[in-house]
Amino acid sequence: MASQTTSEGARKDASRVEVAAKIGIEYKKEVDFPKWYQQVLTRSEMLDYYDVSGCYILRPWAYKIWQEIQQYIDHEIEEIGVENSYFPMSIPAKNLEKEKEHIAGFAAEVAWVTKAGSSNLDEPLAIRPTSETAMYPYYAKWVRSHRDLPLRLNQWCSVVRWEFKNPQPFLRNREFLWQEGHTAFATKAEADLEVEQILETYRQVYEGLLAVPVIKGIKSDKEKFAGGLYTTSLEGYIPTTGRGIQAATSHSLGQNFAKMFDISYEDPQGPLANGDSRPALHAWQNSWGFSTRSLGVMIMVHGDDKGLVLPPRVAAVQVVIIPCGMNAKVSDEDRLSVDRRLAKVLTLLKKADIRARVDNRDNYSVGFKFNHWELRGVPVRLELGPKDVRNNQIMAARRDNGAKIALQQTTLVSEVRDLLDIIQRDMFNHAKEIRDANVVFIEEWKDFMPALDKKQLCLIPWCEESDCEDRIKEKSSRSGHTATEDHNEKAPSMGAKSLCIPMDQPVDKKIIQGETKCVSCGKDAKRWALFGRSY
Amino acid sequence: MASQTTSEGARKDASRVEVAAKIGIEYKKEVDFPKWYQQVLTRSEMLDYYDVSGCYILRPWAYKIWQEIQQYIDHEIEEIGVENSYFPMSIPAKNLEKEKEHIAGFAAEVAWVTKAGSSNLDEPLAIRPTSETAMYPYYAKWVRSHRDLPLRLNQWCSVVRWEFKNPQPFLRNREFLWQEGHTAFATKAEADLEVEQILETYRQVYEGLLAVPVIKGIKSDKEKFAGGLYTTSLEGYIPTTGRGIQAATSHSLGQNFAKMFDISYEDPQGPLANGDSRPALHAWQNSWGFSTRSLGVMIMVHGDDKGLVLPPRVAAVQVVIIPCGMNAKVSDEDRLSVDRRLAKVLTLLKKADIRARVDNRDNYSVGFKFNHWELRGVPVRLELGPKDVRNNQIMAARRDNGAKIALQQTTLVSEVRDLLDIIQRDMFNHAKEIRDANVVFIEEWKDFMPALDKKQLCLIPWCEESDCEDRIKEKSSRSGHTATEDHNEKAPSMGAKSLCIPMDQPVDKKIIQGETKCVSCGKDAKRWALFGRSY
Repeated sequence: MASQTTSEGARKDASRVEVAAKIGIEYKKEVDFPKWYQQVLTRSEMLDYYDVSGCYILRPWAYKIWQEIQQYIDHEIEEIGVENSYFPMSIPAKNLEKEKEHIAGFAAEVAWVTKAGSSNLDEPLAIRPTSETAMYPYYAKWVRSHRDLPLRLNQWCSVVRWEFKNPQPFLRNREFLWQEGHTAFATKAEADLEVEQILETYRQVYEGLLAVPVIKGIKSDKEKFAGGLYTTSLEGYIPTTGRGIQAATSHSLGQNFAKMFDISYEDPQGPLANGDSRPALHAWQNSWGFSTRSLGVMIMVHGDDKGLVLPPRVAAVQVVIIPCGMNAKVSDEDRLSVDRRLAKVLTLLKKADIRARVDNRDNYSVGFKFNHWELRGVPVRLELGPKDVRNNQIMAARRDNGAKIALQQTTLVSEVRDLLDIIQRDMFNHAKEIRDANVVFIEEWKDFMPALDKKQLCLIPWCEESDCEDRIKEKSSRSGHTATEDHNEKAPSMGAKSLCIPMDQPVDKKIIQGETKCVSCGKDAKRWALFGRSY
Repeated sequence: MASQTTSEGARKDASRVEVAAKIGIEYKKEVDFPKWYQQVLTRSEMLDYYDVSGCYILRPWAYKIWQEIQQYIDHEIEEIGVENSYFPMSIPAKNLEKEKEHIAGFAAEVAWVTKAGSSNLDEPLAIRPTSETAMYPYYAKWVRSHRDLPLRLNQWCSVVRWEFKNPQPFLRNREFLWQEGHTAFATKAEADLEVEQILETYRQVYEGLLAVPVIKGIKSDKEKFAGGLYTTSLEGYIPTTGRGIQAATSHSLGQNFAKMFDISYEDPQGPLANGDSRPALHAWQNSWGFSTRSLGVMIMVHGDDKGLVLPPRVAAVQVVIIPCGMNAKVSDEDRLSVDRRLAKVLTLLKKADIRARVDNRDNYSVGFKFNHWELRGVPVRLELGPKDVRNNQIMAARRDNGAKIALQQTTLVSEVRDLLDIIQRDMFNHAKEIRDANVVFIEEWKDFMPALDKKQLCLIPWCEESDCEDRIKEKSSRSGHTATEDHNEKAPSMGAKSLCIPMDQPVDKKIIQGETKCVSCGKDAKRWALFGRSY
């Protein structure tokens, strides 16, 4: 193993000692989650801290995952007719401020460019916090006739939100990467359909690619997008802190922005007024976004005390092959046969589009290499030594649960492929079991706080009124209870807020209209709503 | 055809008249190049002008081409071991200013963020004009041992250079998209090899994808990258203005930045000094970039009086299929057979990975559709009517030269594929013929200005001295000659500068050392150098 101390020998190879000393995770996930998270991020080389607070460097190990997500989303949205484009990052103040409710939601966090070279700009330019106000003046220009609809654009870019709360890598960055889709339709029905389709695509990314279970739902009025009609979202759950996390959003903007920016067209069926003009109709719009926050959720949900645990579908390296048992007693002939077999296995796997790598560095011990790739979360480790070559087998070790399986050389590729699928499925199922066990039905207020303090999310029959939501937050934060394992400045007395009203309402526990009462205020409950502490 | 005037009938379909009136290009490329360029860009829906001067919207028609380029470059650089990553866009002033020569090259154009929300930032942040100074402090941190080299990262992002010269879409934007590769090696030999490999990849993009001929060369000392060791570049040629254009650059940074940012490692072979430390060695670095400027070059080189002409390899739509001859006399049966054939052809082409689209809009005339897709530069138009169905043929029209070819239904896919290849090759050859005819050997100064004024680039035996370069610029701008067809504020008396020293020196016209003299100053010439007016 790699726990070398600074012996005389080690001092001669300073870099090795440094790397060795740095390789492990010194904090336990359940004991010091914030420090665990930081160390996993930096030591796995996912991310590094940047000179500007709240900004981070996405290193290749993380960026590769982002690219897998990009490819998936790009393919899905192209299928339904969305096209990619790019709008400038600078938004003139007058455009940004056009939609009052919208700007109110972002004003405090906008970064402003005021100078270029040594000159002051005539008008300060906002760096986009989101691009509604950059894009919609042009949507107004491009949409003239109903034939110009639908107009469906997406862009991949970074946005800047200069939050003054504690930044947290991936979850709350001052600059982060995302895609933002912005669409306009002639009818509400078409727009509504897209809101759903996109939310489903996002669910597939979380559940299918990242193996993270999420709940589809609708946001309360308080929590919906500033200036929009309604917001749908995916809500995730971080077991270690017991907090919910908004994972992605798909907004219906209704006609609000269309009216503000005049995205309209002549009603082709409308009556002719004044001889030749027909009444104008406003477009129905959506906007939707998926960001690198998803990587943080994935890391928090799956990581363990050894470091990252990556789902096979997004891992940059799915299989690492490590030569083992190559001690001084091994004959040259055996060495050669191992080398040959390594090359063969690598070729076979790569040909089958499995992302495989051989670690044949001769300056590190086998134990060091095991730690190295475990820390980085590679789903499958293959171990190959002289004996394995003779027996035509290869040992596989699963990163997610540590299980070891002997694979046969003759059926290696299909066995590895199956194993990757199984790991992907098991990771999701495991995370889902934990999540499901921690989303509890609360039918009396007295059970609400104890559930929160058991790090659970609460499904309550709810009246859906904003006052009641405020009151729940207040009651749950004022309480003597304190959240444990929390690492946010708000943590000790953080109140619960509504996360969403789940789209899949429980079938066996029906809310009876006019009968079932809101758990908090006692008024008539409308639907089950998910409440919890959250990021 | 779509040249409807405002008749009573037309007034009832306002959008159609508007579109129809807008569809053509009103300027001739050879007569008013600047206006032609603007109109082609906006009316083909490649780009739109944005509210902030010098910033433009890349619409899907252009963005799709950029994505093709991205895919190509990503594949090529991954093959040689470069990985993608993402660094923040904001650079603290102190980092930006670390390399004096470098910042001197960019200071006048840097956009500064000075405010967030309503607070002033403690330290202003530069929006990256290029990322050397964002990245290299971390390279210094990550590189500890020779085993950490090579370090080869790339990022796709936008950069901001707030130039105060006249902006020009694609060619001189205040914000533009690019990739920037930043690499560090243990040896100069490895670094030099990469400089070449990358330049070759860029050449493949220009010549293979965009069908634009370019000249590989080395920049003069005056024109090399600020802070670098030497710069290699591709130089293109815009026939209409007779100006050269820097198409892409691959820089050797030498050890200059590595010394400034301390990107170093212990010499593994070095003598042990002071017991345990070895002498430090600095890394050899490169940086290289390819930007959306390439789209502007492509448009300027290939476009004609009807609009865009897109090379098949990058066109979002390679083939548009238009139903023809469907007048009122056509029987329902014939209509149905045309519809069926259209669907079949589309399916066949798509299955063969040919990007095809049917234009079956029933509110536009055939002539209107022809113009519409010609303006957008679609390489091949297929025309299909009732007669064609009966004869099992389909007419193809080439966008690049207007030629018409009858294709057989049975061999359609292979014929279309061949046709696209032929167009791609012909477009390149055509552009190369023109370029070659306008790069002329100048062996006496008296021939220099006349060549420039014939819109040519000049290859001259050159001494390679900076003073001489200044003098050539001066002599060529002071001259009574004025450049024609130029649309830059510098145009009337724009002097010629060195574009590059071509890597492929003429074999039949050798410079004889100590004998051949510099065309301008009469000192000993070293190599042939390419001079010209330029963007």
